[in-house]
Amino acid sequence: MYEYNQNFFKDTQGYLFAVQGEKIEKYRRTHPNADLISLGIGDVTLPLAPVIVQALVKASEDMGNAQLFHGYGPYAGYEWLRSDIIEHDFKSRGVSLDLDEIFVSDGAKSDCGNLCELFSASNRIAVCDPTYPAYIGANILYGRGGTFDMQKDVWDDIVYLPCTAENAFVPELPEKTADIIYLCFPNNPTGVMISKERLQRWVDYAVKNRALIIYDAAYEAYITDTDAVHSVYECEGAKECAVEIRSYSKVAGFTGMRMGYIVIPKTVRNEQGSLNALWGRRLGVKYNGAPYVIQRAAQAVYSSEGHNQVMEQIAYYMNNVRYIVQELKKLGYTVYGGKNSPYAWLQTPHGMSSWDFFDYLLDKAHVIGTPGSGFGPSGRGYFRLTGFGSYENTVKAVDRIRKYIG
Amino acid sequence: MYEYNQNFFKDTQGYLFAVQGEKIEKYRRTHPNADLISLGIGDVTLPLAPVIVQALVKASEDMGNAQLFHGYGPYAGYEWLRSDIIEHDFKSRGVSLDLDEIFVSDGAKSDCGNLCELFSASNRIAVCDPTYPAYIGANILYGRGGTFDMQKDVWDDIVYLPCTAENAFVPELPEKTADIIYLCFPNNPTGVMISKERLQRWVDYAVKNRALIIYDAAYEAYITDTDAVHSVYECEGAKECAVEIRSYSKVAGFTGMRMGYIVIPKTVRNEQGSLNALWGRRLGVKYNGAPYVIQRAAQAVYSSEGHNQVMEQIAYYMNNVRYIVQELKKLGYTVYGGKNSPYAWLQTPHGMSSWDFFDYLLDKAHVIGTPGSGFGPSGRGYFRLTGFGSYENTVKAVDRIRKYIG
Repeated sequence: MYEYNQNFFKDTQGYLFAVQGEKIEKYRRTHPNADLISLGIGDVTLPLAPVIVQALVKASEDMGNAQLFHGYGPYAGYEWLRSDIIEHDFKSRGVSLDLDEIFVSDGAKSDCGNLCELFSASNRIAVCDPTYPAYIGANILYGRGGTFDMQKDVWDDIVYLPCTAENAFVPELPEKTADIIYLCFPNNPTGVMISKERLQRWVDYAVKNRALIIYDAAYEAYITDTDAVHSVYECEGAKECAVEIRSYSKVAGFTGMRMGYIVIPKTVRNEQGSLNALWGRRLGVKYNGAPYVIQRAAQAVYSSEGHNQVMEQIAYYMNNVRYIVQELKKLGYTVYGGKNSPYAWLQTPHGMSSWDFFDYLLDKAHVIGTPGSGFGPSGRGYFRLTGFGSYENTVKAVDRIRKYIG
Repeated sequence: MYEYNQNFFKDTQGYLFAVQGEKIEKYRRTHPNADLISLGIGDVTLPLAPVIVQALVKASEDMGNAQLFHGYGPYAGYEWLRSDIIEHDFKSRGVSLDLDEIFVSDGAKSDCGNLCELFSASNRIAVCDPTYPAYIGANILYGRGGTFDMQKDVWDDIVYLPCTAENAFVPELPEKTADIIYLCFPNNPTGVMISKERLQRWVDYAVKNRALIIYDAAYEAYITDTDAVHSVYECEGAKECAVEIRSYSKVAGFTGMRMGYIVIPKTVRNEQGSLNALWGRRLGVKYNGAPYVIQRAAQAVYSSEGHNQVMEQIAYYMNNVRYIVQELKKLGYTVYGGKNSPYAWLQTPHGMSSWDFFDYLLDKAHVIGTPGSGFGPSGRGYFRLTGFGSYENTVKAVDRIRKYIG
């Protein structure tokens, strides 16, 4: 008789965005005429930039031409894309990388999850609290959670790194040693950035404790501070202890296109060997590369025209989130973020719980946000709104909050 | 200190197609003027059919239009694609399935590998011998291989089901009980088909022993026998014990597009629960769906024009493989397959080993094939050629074999 992986039965309340989606679906069914505005799940709303569409159409036409058709591609992605990545995302920041240190994938969520396969169950992971829930969700499936404490809302084998107003949402080094540390900056959900000096402290910690940092830089393109660190590899020693995850979802509106990449320097290794080689083995056995046409579309992001067009879109979203932060502050809300990221992180009014505020906002204002408690216990009493709506909807949503919530 | 998953260090000779690729690369480097013809790795050569290109271009243009843009999609794929799948791939064969029993993915290789995550390490797997190597490769990463016996070329915890000329390449029920059984028909690499009656025996075995069948029907579109079984669900009881994997790679030339799907009936369950629910959980945590534009391209395969165009391509490849089989037989080779699949499976001449024949054929005739021994011990002394080349190259390759190999 076949038997399941028991870790799949370790469940809590389900994946945040799935639960949120069900609630919204139910509300829609019972209120079919409600004009809902979503500032909830971090999905983009602007269409792909013209240069990207052109590249996608051209690649699609290539696929119908015997001379230009592309079948199976390299598991790690085409070299022309990987060399553009190195040139534009890293060399420009003073970071040098080799082609075989870049692995193109079908997105950061997949990479986050799949990385978990490479490690033994015994590793202790550390996550920011609040955090993007997929980091924990995937580790649970690989037996690294321990037991879930319903009251504290934590897994007892996981090290939570509180990110609160008191520490300006930047985590302190942990007391309990962690083997694998997830850091995401600009942060989802709080929207804050880490300084290079603080990030260097984490790199030093990892080198000293022979820990691995998984640095999620999915929102890197939203950084506006001129002195901010864009890649973990700007820190000394990071090439010995860190992998970096990037995504085209938020840079170029690729949420429905599915593409990201992971950087694994060959110098990231422990006594057992090189992580880069392990990832390569995984790809050889379980993956066949990302679609040719999507890789061509991603390449267009690096053309000067493409860069200008996506930066215009990012400026549009940033304008939205700045508007949210500014107007909610006027209403007396305590709001963070909205500077180097598309997220506003606010305290719920009148001490409401995150989910109560979700329901209240949905019902009274027909505005969808994301409950902070879904990102971890330190997110309790917080709420996330995003700048990914249209400007018109953003203004309308804020108007409704002003009118119906106050 | 972080620790790796020890299963990643259980290696044999590396993934067949990677090793083969390296050998070819090396030959190219040392013989830059050699005009190599590849009838090796099962990659297609015809460009995408016109209707598919049109759909892909249209979807690409949609992505640049605010009204038609698609961001995050359903993890399991868009309903319009899943309903077309049910209608055309199953209902037409008398099989009824629900929408939530179909999961669209980025390809059969990923599905084969990812399925492994859902089961405990203790399951004993059974594979046809010879077999598509990724089934074993992925299970090794999840601790289900045991120890590799270099001499016998087998993993001692895996049940090998010999498929030889003696049993017409259709496996007998195993003596040792297996928990998870991989069956692939039309078979890769032997090219043979299983009868409905023989497949029913396997389904009965699985129901009786509470085993799970993973039925890989990636080559279903190549079936020409009119009475052949196209889906495992045509067998009674299969909805209780079988999942089915399909791919667009060989049906519609999607090797570089990356799309397949997996069928997991809700009735596939053991005492611990439903496999369908487990797969859903996996997607929620680790996957964000397949690209919108690729799903639109796959949808075009189901239009009547699309169907005609892809069936024309399949006929072209089948004509190639039939030519290979017929001409090699004339030369005195013992050759199988080439009837319901794009593969010809031949005995190497003069008792040569598979890899020796690979080297010999490459060096003398500049023709690339795939060594049978790479698919398992029962593949020793066999060799795989495919119909996926162009007709001109196929004829040229056979001419060279006639001239230089005999």
